[in-house]
Amino acid sequence: MGLFSKDIKTFDDLFVHTLQDIYYAEKKIAKSLPTMIEKASDPQLKADFKHHLGETENHILRVEEVFKMHGAKPKTTKCPAIDGIIDEADEIAGDVADPHVLDAALIAAAQAVEHYEMTRYGTLVAWAKRLGRPDCASVLAKNLTEEKNADSKLTKLAESKVNLQAAE
Amino acid sequence: MGLFSKDIKTFDDLFVHTLQDIYYAEKKIAKSLPTMIEKASDPQLKADFKHHLGETENHILRVEEVFKMHGAKPKTTKCPAIDGIIDEADEIAGDVADPHVLDAALIAAAQAVEHYEMTRYGTLVAWAKRLGRPDCASVLAKNLTEEKNADSKLTKLAESKVNLQAAE
Repeated sequence: MGLFSKDIKTFDDLFVHTLQDIYYAEKKIAKSLPTMIEKASDPQLKADFKHHLGETENHILRVEEVFKMHGAKPKTTKCPAIDGIIDEADEIAGDVADPHVLDAALIAAAQAVEHYEMTRYGTLVAWAKRLGRPDCASVLAKNLTEEKNADSKLTKLAESKVNLQAAE
Repeated sequence: MGLFSKDIKTFDDLFVHTLQDIYYAEKKIAKSLPTMIEKASDPQLKADFKHHLGETENHILRVEEVFKMHGAKPKTTKCPAIDGIIDEADEIAGDVADPHVLDAALIAAAQAVEHYEMTRYGTLVAWAKRLGRPDCASVLAKNLTEEKNADSKLTKLAESKVNLQAAE
């Protein structure tokens, strides 16, 4: 959420505010993923992060679409949650020397990001429906599905390969 | 994660470090929940938050148990992610006047907290198994299950009642 929450008077205000929050988060994630791609050693992990960067750019466009559908100007609001999650990811990415252990840490960091997005999109989809905007809910649900899939893909890669290599 | 990640050399170090991260997070959540209980208007939401405070206190004890099982001293490491998530929750709790809209915002904030814990416990369970510690995995899995249940309960309450009242 952020600095302008004093303006939240109605449920609709809260919806728009949370849209601004995820808009900020997606933009921040798009800036952070190139570092994670660079730091990852496992080729599949690198590929998954690259694929997710493409998805993230698309998520930003979808959030902008929802702003427009809702008659609001696309605007970010500072989101301390994603700032904190990404700070942790950056720290860990800079401080683990062993490449296999680093890959495991990068997956954990990326899954924390995915989970933040999943909770926000889950909320936004429910709120959009309740506000009588199934059209907005449907666009936001696309982002939610892609975040869930990205998270599942990382779990599979961790459990089938990356954690094994890290534990060796 | 936190300030001491330079010490992470092995997969085991990463596991202990992440345990310190969730230990910090659980303690912070236990401190924040009383404010959320106080701010909530819906009696069921208040009751759910109270119940989860009890669970959170139990989670802290379980994490301490895992530290001991693993031969490590229970210790926190500063976790910017949960700090950011709770900062958002505090901001929103202080800045929405309408009690029904505030309840919806409190649920969203609590679910962001749950999702952070779910991702960390999910990771810790997988890592404990890979490190040959199914006993630690089993204790951590109890916390994971309770976080998932707490999250589902909030979704049901939001969709069946709180969001409807907020949208009126």
